[in-house]
Amino acid sequence: MTASRTDSLDLTAVRRDTPGVLHRIHLNNAGAALMPAPVLQAVTDYLGRESEIGGYEAAAEQAGQLDDVYNSIAKLVGGHRDEIAVTENATVAWQRAFYAMDFQPGDRILTTSAEFAANYIAFLQIAKRFDVTVDVIPNDDAGALDPTALERMIDGKVRLIAITWIPTNGGLVNPAVEVGKIANAHGIPYLLDACQAVGQMPVDVDTLGCDMLTATGRKFLRAPRGTGFLYIRKTLLDRTEPAMLDLFGAKVVELGDYELRPDARRFETWETNYSTRLGLRAAVDYALAIGLEAIEDRCRRLADLLRAHLAAIPGLQLRDLGSRRSAIISFTLDGVEAALVMQQLKEKQINVSVSPPSSTPIDASARHLPPVVRVSPHYYNSEDEVETFVAAVRACAQDVT
Amino acid sequence: MTASRTDSLDLTAVRRDTPGVLHRIHLNNAGAALMPAPVLQAVTDYLGRESEIGGYEAAAEQAGQLDDVYNSIAKLVGGHRDEIAVTENATVAWQRAFYAMDFQPGDRILTTSAEFAANYIAFLQIAKRFDVTVDVIPNDDAGALDPTALERMIDGKVRLIAITWIPTNGGLVNPAVEVGKIANAHGIPYLLDACQAVGQMPVDVDTLGCDMLTATGRKFLRAPRGTGFLYIRKTLLDRTEPAMLDLFGAKVVELGDYELRPDARRFETWETNYSTRLGLRAAVDYALAIGLEAIEDRCRRLADLLRAHLAAIPGLQLRDLGSRRSAIISFTLDGVEAALVMQQLKEKQINVSVSPPSSTPIDASARHLPPVVRVSPHYYNSEDEVETFVAAVRACAQDVT
Repeated sequence: MTASRTDSLDLTAVRRDTPGVLHRIHLNNAGAALMPAPVLQAVTDYLGRESEIGGYEAAAEQAGQLDDVYNSIAKLVGGHRDEIAVTENATVAWQRAFYAMDFQPGDRILTTSAEFAANYIAFLQIAKRFDVTVDVIPNDDAGALDPTALERMIDGKVRLIAITWIPTNGGLVNPAVEVGKIANAHGIPYLLDACQAVGQMPVDVDTLGCDMLTATGRKFLRAPRGTGFLYIRKTLLDRTEPAMLDLFGAKVVELGDYELRPDARRFETWETNYSTRLGLRAAVDYALAIGLEAIEDRCRRLADLLRAHLAAIPGLQLRDLGSRRSAIISFTLDGVEAALVMQQLKEKQINVSVSPPSSTPIDASARHLPPVVRVSPHYYNSEDEVETFVAAVRACAQDVT
Repeated sequence: MTASRTDSLDLTAVRRDTPGVLHRIHLNNAGAALMPAPVLQAVTDYLGRESEIGGYEAAAEQAGQLDDVYNSIAKLVGGHRDEIAVTENATVAWQRAFYAMDFQPGDRILTTSAEFAANYIAFLQIAKRFDVTVDVIPNDDAGALDPTALERMIDGKVRLIAITWIPTNGGLVNPAVEVGKIANAHGIPYLLDACQAVGQMPVDVDTLGCDMLTATGRKFLRAPRGTGFLYIRKTLLDRTEPAMLDLFGAKVVELGDYELRPDARRFETWETNYSTRLGLRAAVDYALAIGLEAIEDRCRRLADLLRAHLAAIPGLQLRDLGSRRSAIISFTLDGVEAALVMQQLKEKQINVSVSPPSSTPIDASARHLPPVVRVSPHYYNSEDEVETFVAAVRACAQDVT
């Protein structure tokens, strides 16, 4: 079955759809992936139309396609279209979900050691504001969140379990499904940051058991920057008021009183960027047409290949954790700073990024991590590109010795 | 002096820069103006570059131009670049400012009758959350906010004065400078919604005396949708923590503790849409090159012309207030619903919009307003277009009689 999945992905076709592969070896898909041509075209065509006939007028003309983004996202992650809010980015989606929780003094938030810094800072702000405690779920021996440890931490004070599924570095895939089972068994809201998962692998909110899931468009989903979304389960939605409201999220029923709109779009604002919504929809449809199983298989195959080659380079330390691995590979090179590795690769038209300790403060502090080089292939990368990249890293390593 | 200002605006040139004038008579600039070609090009060029070399890589390549948006906005509205945050839209800018105010039970918020519904709903939410009172400043005989009445309302409980400068309909220009004098005299934070003012007239935060000013790109500024900004005065900024934070607005200094960034960008998120930022910058620079005095003069001239023509149509009721008027004209036609007027104009390739009572609930309730037709010319509209529009409205009116 695995073979047939991967065979179903036509590498020549997806590379032909990706103008960027002519310019760069792009291994920074965990940062922002290369948009395929249909995504770019959806955005620029719509912008052109706005400039021709006007912004409101273009939105009215293409109302059906604009509305379809909710159907596409529901197909991608499961759930109902009324449980989806489209947002400006994943941070905004996550903030609107997180800050809407009705925290009380003494509440506990449970999170992971690999939590993204943006979320961690929001936890600290809420901890200060409401006298809430933030507790880190211990890891198993491989460095992934340990569900058994989580189960032992549950008490009547746990108000929220909020974890990052695939951390921004460290190669890890946290056991999001197992966390969902525990959260559901105890009736605790479960907020899953799926930023690096959506577009890289199949995602289903019912399998995951999450009450809220947030994602970005720009990473593995290959959508334009300035896009993201929130899924919120109807049972939680019905008892959740956004922390901020405008005339789209609520309406004035009589002077002095307002009423929330029934669907998840209460987490949106009236004003939005229509062109990027169409880009997001095109990106979701593009991923669905390829198939998320095929994408996951190829991402894993390329990541395995990369890890195997990198591990053989003298002085190179893979910094990845967990027994299940994502397509995000982190490493350091003895005697060469990560920024210099990135720079030397850039001179060879190879894109990677550097992940500083500040992006995952708990984990980086526990592991005493320096800045790490982050390499993130995607299904449209070729085996040849991987070879070229590995040779370039080997050259960096040899410069030192 | 007035004559020379208007003479300085080259109508032929600005129309040549505006592809939309070949397709439509666009009188919906209070909704979303037609982007000039340099704005569209800034956005699409950058998107193309992202698709060629990658999102992070394009941002690094054009870091200087991207950073320049703060200089451009500071030139446009005054203040220092460190007092500017660029946001996804005006609602987000306004919300981040408003919800950051540290409201206490018993506090009062003073606002106008013509306040935009989005703001009013946020007031109601905060009123409910913190037991705060929302009081409406009475109008003068012409229907504008009455500064004398405001002065009489001030007491130790007033925590915020938050008003819309130019309402979304009703033709009004509220006396924002006079309000600023009163707010400053009493040391009360002053939040000015300048959505319809920026790009239509000169704006200077020091003349206005506002502590916070919010605006959108898409209206009179002619920037892409999905752009807005917040100005916040340093004296207020230094004692204001945003209601929501991420790893851009704050950094972890040691585990468990965070520190806000010093400038106004603490109100942004790390992730942003870079292409629209360049579009916003291009739009600001374009407006500055034409000159805001010249723009204001021509907007006023066209608005005066429109009001004079419309007033002469039998059965047409101008619904505008105030002695100082904006380029936003509101009217109803006896016996023809606003939506039908808009539809009939649309069939003649003329763009206007309908402003429902729900967009200005306090004012619409007080004046028993039905939906009104909103006509909003901009400097690039021609006198011929105004004539064609007026003839089309006259035809709508004659259909009834």
